[in-house]
Amino acid sequence: MAPEVYNERKQEAYSMMKRSVRQMEGTPIEGDGINGVTMKLLVGREDQAPTFAMRHFAIEAGGYTPNHQHPWEHEVLILEGEGELECDGEVLPIAKGDGLLIPSNDLHQFRNTSDKRLEFLCIVPVESDCGEAVPGS
Amino acid sequence: MAPEVYNERKQEAYSMMKRSVRQMEGTPIEGDGINGVTMKLLVGREDQAPTFAMRHFAIEAGGYTPNHQHPWEHEVLILEGEGELECDGEVLPIAKGDGLLIPSNDLHQFRNTSDKRLEFLCIVPVESDCGEAVPGS
Repeated sequence: MAPEVYNERKQEAYSMMKRSVRQMEGTPIEGDGINGVTMKLLVGREDQAPTFAMRHFAIEAGGYTPNHQHPWEHEVLILEGEGELECDGEVLPIAKGDGLLIPSNDLHQFRNTSDKRLEFLCIVPVESDCGEAVPGS
Repeated sequence: MAPEVYNERKQEAYSMMKRSVRQMEGTPIEGDGINGVTMKLLVGREDQAPTFAMRHFAIEAGGYTPNHQHPWEHEVLILEGEGELECDGEVLPIAKGDGLLIPSNDLHQFRNTSDKRLEFLCIVPVESDCGEAVPGS
């Protein structure tokens, strides 16, 4: 009997890949409650990433991501600049070198309270807690 | 009937967390074929990370990670410095801002060929293709 497939995506063929933040153009992220945010999808579902997707975000001075929640977690590394994260009602300062875990379903927002660009890497699972494809992954 | 649990780890309670590269001490990674490598576990299994773990690596000038393979993928962002990655027989230059996908089971090695420190973020799933806990996650 064939072994049970643990993760179907892990059975797909895919290749080593390199894509650079330096050479990519950011996609503006627009919508209610969003200001000055662009995204670069470094590795995602379309690259056959089996488990998680790696996205680079930039927030201009004074900008912010939406104050929202969803059934998947974030892990984040702040790459440049500083600002604040509000998560589940708590506000904390963030700066280059900070690693963050933002739990599934916690209401959260990143805000650039500085006068310089804030950049961070935000990793999401390619599937939500409910097994659905994660938007932006 | 209760819905099927998609991912048992996603049912565990966990909280928002911040941990900074600036304040952590690196753990030396030692073994055959490893030179000048330290790791900082920013978010891992013990933090109840449900899907993936985020680790910061530094390789001193002339250092290298082991030339090895394993049944789980890496996604990597080069944070500082430059060097080269050998993956499945191919050698490519790497520098700050490069994002990489290294497939499961591909033989791979990071080498710092420069005279400055090479730093990168390396994300791994918390479970391998076979459903086993990933070491260092």
